Amino acid sequence: MSQIPKPSFTAQIPLQTEVTQTDLFEHIAGDTLLESSLYVNIALAGLTILAVVLLARGMEDPRAKLIVLSTMLISVVSIASYTGLASGLTVSIIEMPDGHAASGFTTTVSGVEVDGVLTMWGRYLTWALSTPLILLSLGLLAGTNLTKLFTAITFDVAMCVTGLAAALTTSSHMFRWFWYAMSSIFFLVVVYILLVEWQKDAERAGTADIFGKLKLLTVVMWFGYPILWALGVEGIAVLEVAYTSWGYSALDIVAKYIVSMLIVLYVVDEPASIKAGTDYGATSGVTPADD
Amino acid sequence: MSQIPKPSFTAQIPLQTEVTQTDLFEHIAGDTLLESSLYVNIALAGLTILAVVLLARGMEDPRAKLIVLSTMLISVVSIASYTGLASGLTVSIIEMPDGHAASGFTTTVSGVEVDGVLTMWGRYLTWALSTPLILLSLGLLAGTNLTKLFTAITFDVAMCVTGLAAALTTSSHMFRWFWYAMSSIFFLVVVYILLVEWQKDAERAGTADIFGKLKLLTVVMWFGYPILWALGVEGIAVLEVAYTSWGYSALDIVAKYIVSMLIVLYVVDEPASIKAGTDYGATSGVTPADD
Amino acid sequence: MSQIPKPSFTAQIPLQTEVTQTDLFEHIAGDTLLESSLYVNIALAGLTILAVVLLARGMEDPRAKLIVLSTMLISVVSIASYTGLASGLTVSIIEMPDGHAASGFTTTVSGVEVDGVLTMWGRYLTWALSTPLILLSLGLLAGTNLTKLFTAITFDVAMCVTGLAAALTTSSHMFRWFWYAMSSIFFLVVVYILLVEWQKDAERAGTADIFGKLKLLTVVMWFGYPILWALGVEGIAVLEVAYTSWGYSALDIVAKYIVSMLIVLYVVDEPASIKAGTDYGATSGVTPADD
Repeated sequence: MSQIPKPSFTAQIPLQTEVTQTDLFEHIAGDTLLESSLYVNIALAGLTILAVVLLARGMEDPRAKLIVLSTMLISVVSIASYTGLASGLTVSIIEMPDGHAASGFTTTVSGVEVDGVLTMWGRYLTWALSTPLILLSLGLLAGTNLTKLFTAITFDVAMCVTGLAAALTTSSHMFRWFWYAMSSIFFLVVVYILLVEWQKDAERAGTADIFGKLKLLTVVMWFGYPILWALGVEGIAVLEVAYTSWGYSALDIVAKYIVSMLIVLYVVDEPASIKAGTDYGATSGVTPADD
Repeated sequence: MSQIPKPSFTAQIPLQTEVTQTDLFEHIAGDTLLESSLYVNIALAGLTILAVVLLARGMEDPRAKLIVLSTMLISVVSIASYTGLASGLTVSIIEMPDGHAASGFTTTVSGVEVDGVLTMWGRYLTWALSTPLILLSLGLLAGTNLTKLFTAITFDVAMCVTGLAAALTTSSHMFRWFWYAMSSIFFLVVVYILLVEWQKDAERAGTADIFGKLKLLTVVMWFGYPILWALGVEGIAVLEVAYTSWGYSALDIVAKYIVSMLIVLYVVDEPASIKAGTDYGATSGVTPADD
Repeated sequence: MSQIPKPSFTAQIPLQTEVTQTDLFEHIAGDTLLESSLYVNIALAGLTILAVVLLARGMEDPRAKLIVLSTMLISVVSIASYTGLASGLTVSIIEMPDGHAASGFTTTVSGVEVDGVLTMWGRYLTWALSTPLILLSLGLLAGTNLTKLFTAITFDVAMCVTGLAAALTTSSHMFRWFWYAMSSIFFLVVVYILLVEWQKDAERAGTADIFGKLKLLTVVMWFGYPILWALGVEGIAVLEVAYTSWGYSALDIVAKYIVSMLIVLYVVDEPASIKAGTDYGATSGVTPADD
């Protein structure tokens, strides 16, 4: 080393404690409930990708292909996200600030008790990639225009990034909830677009029946995420880490894989309805000219 | 832990010293001048978002809505950026390399003198999100085409990312300025597009009067950022951290909130002019078909 | 510090060991073979940018300009990528997991033997930016549509991000290869689009001759990257770090700078062919209306 070792304050940065990635991997692997919440999703994301590939074989309509592709990418992000969590790459033990319900909590990792709680921050990071794809699929299905798609996706990404910041803020209890409040406001913008704007677009594009169902399913499921965040160890800490993780995993199963399958099955079963919507919205004037 | 503790070299990575996020938060909170440079911008970004929402109510034209939306997103990024700085999440104490004016500087954090200076690297990170939105707003107003918008935004992002790299490089004084030179060249590409290309586009689209003013305001303000970087603790260290921070904050007030308000007020006051520009550039053939 | 120093486990996170950025910079600078593999690319990326700027002067056709721009950006990303590596900013010494061929390896840095091997993870990170630009250039040249461009680029980014995760996973040998397998599957999707889909598009757009050559060159070169990854210190560790680095650098010279020059020279020499392709694919209905 180029410098004389200093008398060692233990280094602390947001994403880290004195725990190695191997410790975290083994900690997760040693907790069957927690581990299963991750592996179930790796398996289901993989199966969803396979099912979409099989169902979409031979599809020719460019609008249908674009919808199916963005739907399949949801599970591509999800399988990578859960692999990151299970391998210990995107989780950390972090210490909560004074005043937080989990302040002073310790976690036993590889037989050693360390300060802090297990934060699966990789979830919040990858939501910034997976949720825009869900909105892209739904927005294309609704035949919305580029402006509304851009609005929904930018506020969605802002929601995810501020949610990640909330989870990584260890300096101040107040700031954690300030991030949370910001994230929730951005969420409400997304909800408004789903419930009001895209419903109108879907009616015009002739996909109101399927969109109406998916919209409700999506909005109801998506409200579950901030509620879990608030109840879990990130928030008021009344739910344990493994239960919170299963909560997120269950929501993901519906909001990602089941929603994906419903979209793809509709696109396969109703090609005329999808083709009819080609003249509307974001795909208008672009995809028809493409092929 | 899975490994026997080694005889402790203190860990050092770019974004970190032996200081916790809480230490950084308290360090900023204890410096009224520095703290106020951040909180003023959180407040003004919030007010700008509210003002844009109020002014844009009832707007129907899709081109107008897209311009106003991208303008509002500038303040959305800004409020998150300043919250990150104020909470200590996106700042660090870093040690400057040999030969740097601030090499060997120390900072007193929570009563302890630590090697290094306070770097607010979160600013440079979030510029990669906020400045493309400023260019998007200006480019849409000028009625430019997708190729020029893509050029401006990609060089702008390259400018911000290399600027961030400059700030985080602690290994070599020369390399810091090599990054700075790269970033400056990318900046000049952006300036050329603003001054020459988009001015021509704005003349054709009928928004030359307002674009001409905003263009000058933006270019003059944007030159302030690399100058401050060079004068502050990142560069030749003649300006103290709190003054540099106020410098950036003052530039942001003009380049972000005032520019945003001018754009939105113009869009509200001159709907015919905005509607007339719909046939030009990036929104041509896309937005009219959308609604 | 706000906390009493604990009895010091040395901190360990994925991107870090007990080594400073300065140590890494000097380690690279002290290894002529390794160092030259980086500086050669900084120089060639810079020359390619200059050559493209000179060749593209006076170009007017919007489709030609978009192709040349995305081509130039490949080298912009590359020069920044290699500067990050050479400065030590985006490299780390990481410890491989049990069962890995390089498990237990040590590296001598600044005269001290530290656990782990030199990982140039900045390469994998910046591939997520440079390879989409290569695909954008090739896709535009082939006159493909937005859906196929979106497919190729999203799977390419998924390939790069999972490749980065593979390199940073230190907890489990199995997980490294699971990431690698995922990344390889995504790669095959990209290869299929290049070889089959875009070839058909290029035939329709009248650029089949040049696209056919570039496609083969790109696919052959791109197969080199995962092979090198598997042979090098990330994989089965039969190739030393400096040779692996030269391998990647040599591939980059062909896959980036030579491919770029071939594209730009074609666009300059065959303006009629490029203009004729304007009615096809992603630029159809967008660029003609733009200018």
